[in-house]
Amino acid sequence: MKKIEAIIRKSKYDEVKEALHAKGVDFFTYWDVSGIGNEESGLTYRGIKYSTYDIARRVLSIVVEDSKVDSVVETLLSSARTGEVGDGKIFISNIEKAYRVRNSDVDGGALS
Amino acid sequence: MKKIEAIIRKSKYDEVKEALHAKGVDFFTYWDVSGIGNEESGLTYRGIKYSTYDIARRVLSIVVEDSKVDSVVETLLSSARTGEVGDGKIFISNIEKAYRVRNSDVDGGALS
Amino acid sequence: MKKIEAIIRKSKYDEVKEALHAKGVDFFTYWDVSGIGNEESGLTYRGIKYSTYDIARRVLSIVVEDSKVDSVVETLLSSARTGEVGDGKIFISNIEKAYRVRNSDVDGGALS
Repeated sequence: MKKIEAIIRKSKYDEVKEALHAKGVDFFTYWDVSGIGNEESGLTYRGIKYSTYDIARRVLSIVVEDSKVDSVVETLLSSARTGEVGDGKIFISNIEKAYRVRNSDVDGGALS
Repeated sequence: MKKIEAIIRKSKYDEVKEALHAKGVDFFTYWDVSGIGNEESGLTYRGIKYSTYDIARRVLSIVVEDSKVDSVVETLLSSARTGEVGDGKIFISNIEKAYRVRNSDVDGGALS
Repeated sequence: MKKIEAIIRKSKYDEVKEALHAKGVDFFTYWDVSGIGNEESGLTYRGIKYSTYDIARRVLSIVVEDSKVDSVVETLLSSARTGEVGDGKIFISNIEKAYRVRNSDVDGGALS
């Protein structure tokens, strides 16, 4: 299982949520964060063009089986994109074990 | 070391906190999130019974040594359970290194 | 790539942010959490000296290439420290893949 952590613009949340729902993603959590960044862009600083931003962001944490990762990432990339600096990032990490609290189901059974 | 991330009902937090304290869990952080889910349950949608929920949840993030994982998970499963859809999930992932900021103690020393 | 998760005193945030900026950390997210802890310290409880605290904390989540981890951790340890119980912890975990949402750049390209 993998955890897909998507740090997106808060303004794109509804669109992303609908796209995930259409892909059959059955469980995720989200919360609001602040994002600090410097990315090569408009302003010039010491000869390099930078844009500093502090954008209202929402983190979506989605745990899925390995076979679904690519499809969910594609869905996130297309639904969360504006094309402007500050669209956010997606990070993939490993989940070793999962439990459903209601009935102690584990791993695949906890996610389905 | 492992990170135990428990996504529980906010309403069960006090009970879970007491149970963790009784087990000697010495450090954890928590914050409030929203959880979106669809689980097979009461309502029928396209022939499958679904229940969609958006429950106020709290995430507890607990880092412990490997030997304590099973005991802490059991404590979480029993103290966070109501038996109804939406009780939440627990995810286990690996932590490669830990530091205590106060004195730069590492790994086991940072957790004790 | 590694995720560096620093759980610090909220009161040290500005200092930490400046120190990270000076180190060239170009992207991170943060959010506020509560931290529960018991650490050997001032008070005596069943023969052991404990201090229980519930401190307003901020989590910084920073993903960097492996080569930068030690430098960022040193920066965090020195800028977040007061020397008192409750300074927080730093946890390192593995990130398998990273994407920049704006242009689908991956891994190193997503972080730079």
